[in-house]
Amino acid sequence: MQLSDLETPALLLDVPTMDANIARMRAHLRALGVGFRPHVKTAKSADVVRRFFDGGTGPITVSTLKEAEAFADQGCTDILYAVGIAPNKLAHAARLRARGVDLTVLVDNVEIAGALAAQARAQGAALPALIEIDSDGHRAGVAPESADLLAVGRALHAAGSLAGVMTHAGASYDCRSVAAIRAMAEQERSRTVRAAARLRDAGLPCPVVSVGSSPTATYAERLDGVTEVRAGVFVFFDLVMAGIGVCRVEDLALSVLTTVIGHQRERGWLVTDAGWMALSRDRGTASQPVDQGYGLVCDAAGALLPDIVMTGANQEHGILAHRSGDPARMPMLPVGTLLRILPNHACATGAQHDRYHAVRGASPEIEAVWPRFSGW
Amino acid sequence: MQLSDLETPALLLDVPTMDANIARMRAHLRALGVGFRPHVKTAKSADVVRRFFDGGTGPITVSTLKEAEAFADQGCTDILYAVGIAPNKLAHAARLRARGVDLTVLVDNVEIAGALAAQARAQGAALPALIEIDSDGHRAGVAPESADLLAVGRALHAAGSLAGVMTHAGASYDCRSVAAIRAMAEQERSRTVRAAARLRDAGLPCPVVSVGSSPTATYAERLDGVTEVRAGVFVFFDLVMAGIGVCRVEDLALSVLTTVIGHQRERGWLVTDAGWMALSRDRGTASQPVDQGYGLVCDAAGALLPDIVMTGANQEHGILAHRSGDPARMPMLPVGTLLRILPNHACATGAQHDRYHAVRGASPEIEAVWPRFSGW
Repeated sequence: MQLSDLETPALLLDVPTMDANIARMRAHLRALGVGFRPHVKTAKSADVVRRFFDGGTGPITVSTLKEAEAFADQGCTDILYAVGIAPNKLAHAARLRARGVDLTVLVDNVEIAGALAAQARAQGAALPALIEIDSDGHRAGVAPESADLLAVGRALHAAGSLAGVMTHAGASYDCRSVAAIRAMAEQERSRTVRAAARLRDAGLPCPVVSVGSSPTATYAERLDGVTEVRAGVFVFFDLVMAGIGVCRVEDLALSVLTTVIGHQRERGWLVTDAGWMALSRDRGTASQPVDQGYGLVCDAAGALLPDIVMTGANQEHGILAHRSGDPARMPMLPVGTLLRILPNHACATGAQHDRYHAVRGASPEIEAVWPRFSGW
Repeated sequence: MQLSDLETPALLLDVPTMDANIARMRAHLRALGVGFRPHVKTAKSADVVRRFFDGGTGPITVSTLKEAEAFADQGCTDILYAVGIAPNKLAHAARLRARGVDLTVLVDNVEIAGALAAQARAQGAALPALIEIDSDGHRAGVAPESADLLAVGRALHAAGSLAGVMTHAGASYDCRSVAAIRAMAEQERSRTVRAAARLRDAGLPCPVVSVGSSPTATYAERLDGVTEVRAGVFVFFDLVMAGIGVCRVEDLALSVLTTVIGHQRERGWLVTDAGWMALSRDRGTASQPVDQGYGLVCDAAGALLPDIVMTGANQEHGILAHRSGDPARMPMLPVGTLLRILPNHACATGAQHDRYHAVRGASPEIEAVWPRFSGW
């Protein structure tokens, strides 16, 4: 099957580029002497995830219990569910443990720690949990110097659940230089290691110290005290990552194949059949120094068309224009022309599709079709 | 089953609210003496779409050929595919015709009209097509006064395909008053009727004159010369529609059920388990006078919590805060509290889910689970 056999829009995955992204991250973390627990929320595909491990089956990080179920079905049993667990998911987590999954959950408050204790008493089996540490003020977690840290630690320990600490330095996405990302990586490391030390000083066990985000994992220079690193979007990378210097545009493995369906010559627009439903509504580069609209435009072989940007999106329509807005500078490619759009955010764009079409560089050949899933 | 039995996030659909939205639109268009061809791209659910027709099966508008296949399976055979057709979808369109679907496609250029002619010659069967009219400069279509209109008309007529004209006044979404929407509705009507007249004056047939968008369909005051109206998002409505005065917030039928999973008390945040994956990345109200963030927050029974807004979203985390940003004004609801989030854009939020949980107002009972589909 070839690209020209597809009905568009369709999601393409350049496998050599992805494999290089994986190899680079693994080599970097191996050199730093730390474990790697990739986040599968970006790919949600068994075919992708097995390439993380050279035939192994984990460990992995998931963002939903549906991912945990799906990857457990593929033989991945060492799973961290990296969203603070809600009470209505505790029974499901217990079922995963009962089917042999070594599931660990996340906790950042004594209320849910108490619920874990109650469930452990009722079922005679504890649910391992990491304490989420707030290392950057961007989301959830307890502060490393807080009284809450020890209160949550004691409550989890009493429940037989305390397995360590974790953080996600999501604020690294807002960094604007490699130096800033390096500093954020050290902040992420040091604050999480400090939280672990406070727990241990209080006589509490803390075997796991888990950190990570694709930017900080890429640029971390030392990880002493850390036992494992998590990263997700690095597997495909995207324009947001390129915009903060974590990758080059050439490292983007994911794109959306689309077709020119019409022209608005006076406005200098190509109209395509890939709108926000195919790309997602993610406009992550809008707040970066260079706004890439809904994505950068490549020809069907993946070569960038300089300064052609997807500037607009309706549900099933894309609008492509020259970055300058000058209609005279916009090539009016014929109706039927196939193009690839490089997305702002691989996690969001991938989630709009139910399969990857595996390709290899400029080749028009589709080597495989890999299913992916979504939802909860 | 009750709301408290669900794992969150989960998509809720308030059926009486939806039914009222449908009844209001039908009554309005009936009073204007015009046909109604609802757009099923918002719902993508047989259970929803059958409520449009009181037991009938159409006519319907679709945004993908996958929708056409799915609704044809439900007995809907009068289908308009309302995105300019790409060459790589012509064979699929012909297969739909061959299975008995009365499919009409959209064309706005002579290149694709020529491809329709070639296919008609090869297969001995023409594919009916409407000419897309650009009535507002926002997307695709030929200008009503252009030479292109007649060129496309002649090419389609030669192919045996010419069935009429259609437009979508998507610019109505940018209106800021009911008066502006009324003016846009009249512009949409008059320009499309004018295009039809030009075709007829040139000796070309133009039986169908199709217009529509939820704002213009809601506020159109006269539709003479129009044969049918299309509208989609009206079925559920959303905060973007409420923001331009097309509905009230009480008319929103769709919401995302979520759970409080933690607090950041110093920042005045509730952290929930519904992030952008559950709401979509759509920030359509950001450009409106009142920015509703990622959505407005209701209690589990659907009552608005005044001035509580979903201000931030990670993939599986939501952040709720007081609109003022003042932590002292934010209620620190307990971990485990169920809340409903009203979305910016029903089409985008719906697409993140594979089922609707049908509910009735403040009742905690789930009356039915209705599957919905996505993709192409």
